[in-house]
Amino acid sequence: MTTATIAVEDAEALVANALIAHGCAPGNALSTARALVAAEIDGQAGHGLSRVGSYCAQVKAGKVKGGAAAQVSRPRPGWIAVDAGHGFAFPAFDLAVDAVSAAAAETGIAAAAIARSHHCGQAGRHVERLADRGCIGLLFANTPEAMAPWGGSKPLFGTNPIAFAAPRRGQPSLVIDLSLSVVARGKVMAASKRGETIPEGWALDAEGRPTTDPAAALAGSMVPMGEAKGAALALMVEVMAAALTGGRFGFEATSFLNAEGGPPDVGQCLLAIDIRATAGEAFLDRMAVLTDAMLAQEGVRLPGSSRLARRDAAARDGLSTSEAMLAELRALAE
Amino acid sequence: MTTATIAVEDAEALVANALIAHGCAPGNALSTARALVAAEIDGQAGHGLSRVGSYCAQVKAGKVKGGAAAQVSRPRPGWIAVDAGHGFAFPAFDLAVDAVSAAAAETGIAAAAIARSHHCGQAGRHVERLADRGCIGLLFANTPEAMAPWGGSKPLFGTNPIAFAAPRRGQPSLVIDLSLSVVARGKVMAASKRGETIPEGWALDAEGRPTTDPAAALAGSMVPMGEAKGAALALMVEVMAAALTGGRFGFEATSFLNAEGGPPDVGQCLLAIDIRATAGEAFLDRMAVLTDAMLAQEGVRLPGSSRLARRDAAARDGLSTSEAMLAELRALAE
Repeated sequence: MTTATIAVEDAEALVANALIAHGCAPGNALSTARALVAAEIDGQAGHGLSRVGSYCAQVKAGKVKGGAAAQVSRPRPGWIAVDAGHGFAFPAFDLAVDAVSAAAAETGIAAAAIARSHHCGQAGRHVERLADRGCIGLLFANTPEAMAPWGGSKPLFGTNPIAFAAPRRGQPSLVIDLSLSVVARGKVMAASKRGETIPEGWALDAEGRPTTDPAAALAGSMVPMGEAKGAALALMVEVMAAALTGGRFGFEATSFLNAEGGPPDVGQCLLAIDIRATAGEAFLDRMAVLTDAMLAQEGVRLPGSSRLARRDAAARDGLSTSEAMLAELRALAE
Repeated sequence: MTTATIAVEDAEALVANALIAHGCAPGNALSTARALVAAEIDGQAGHGLSRVGSYCAQVKAGKVKGGAAAQVSRPRPGWIAVDAGHGFAFPAFDLAVDAVSAAAAETGIAAAAIARSHHCGQAGRHVERLADRGCIGLLFANTPEAMAPWGGSKPLFGTNPIAFAAPRRGQPSLVIDLSLSVVARGKVMAASKRGETIPEGWALDAEGRPTTDPAAALAGSMVPMGEAKGAALALMVEVMAAALTGGRFGFEATSFLNAEGGPPDVGQCLLAIDIRATAGEAFLDRMAVLTDAMLAQEGVRLPGSSRLARRDAAARDGLSTSEAMLAELRALAE
């Protein structure tokens, strides 16, 4: 694989043009392109440029409404309802981040319930944007079925990320971003492509038995992190992201990865707590005490900290990818 | 061990009298007694009657202020601040549940930030009370240091429970209640008392190495469930329960288990989302779809469902405990 670099703005424009060439409205395309490029920069390649081809196909097929105009309403002082309109999730999140942080400044805490949505991509980015505005951010997002309820064998829940961010004084925000499976399903797909086995503990076969065969795993289910506890958290996310928002459950949603079927119509619930309106400056003092105590131990890094060096490198040297990926993007943009 | 039964109301009165005999105000004693008996009934014996002796000693020593009068203020429409006043947590939670559900009915979502608090006990009970009022409840509570940050070896975070509950139509509320360690620290203490080893994967020694020796484990740290992901969630809970509320971090708090030192002064953050004010009746329809899909699989039960049969049995036959425990409670109440 020949590596290649491209300036961040050029990468965003290239991805946006690819989406526009397949029927996406320019504003939606730019919002989506920025999110995918940001994920690629941060080292979340599975939520980055690798998605562009499939996203173009989904717009072209009408599975994603490229011209969707996300709508925001505020039925209660602390409650924002966002209709993503079967479009990409990112334009809906742009509106949700603005609306929920403004509401939290008044009420202390507010929530944005996003429905008729698509993949949230890099979950940490949405909460980080809230933290950069002085809010704690907490995101629950569901995804198509991949994990069984505890004791069962048939996938019902998605891998259902939880993301959390908190502001710090004079330091990058603390960002936690995790899916509730032991590993991402993409790792099983990659092993299957390479003809390799997978470690025990990643996945179960269709009868709910541990398997090291990626084909059996893909026909079965992913193991939740922390076993029964992780499965319970995945259930919590289905309630918060779907039952509460009007989104579809994991077992009702179509794939994020191909152009088949109707829109996935999953949901997301984004909470914001405005620190100035609630805990005040003392919060930032206490965050410093907490992070200092962690970093005083040898071998400890803050979650999400590897993104910072990657961002510096991308700003300085451009985004590092492959010639093949750039060629694919250029072909999609033609 | 000779088993014994006692009527639920008699058990509550006995525990309350034990606390009162050691200097606790009657209202605080009854609130605490009800919570401990409820945990015992629900099968969470570690948060039940076994605590009474230590709680009496903590009141007598002044570590817990038996006469504390918890205070509630509402600095923002959706933000409730609760000062537990170095008392037991349960009287503060009684006020918090009332105030946060009332606020959520107006604003859609609200939070109660509880500071100068003590052990929350059975975490699921607090959120279940919110669900029984038509709210989603979400609780973050921190506890004294037991787990190391990922990559480190020195405990900083508590085992930090997360609890979640959601109302269902015509059915008991869904309740999820989990601590973020693989197992409770009490299981290691019990193995130590019996002179047994512990399974690998439960705990680390003081150098951060896996250990099966309970003494080395107690000098070391508990393993977070889901490894790095669980450690990240424990960090999230420290931020929510302590940095946000004015509570102490796990590594600053004194023990919940003995009468030594000052008050633990941990914190709790309790969120409520009023379903009628937000998602409406459709939420209950969707909860039924989700739980029906789960229960259609052989071997699947809803989290927390074992408590229901235990409650029926206690209401019918009384609370089942041991003669030794009843004798201890009677001696404490004299």
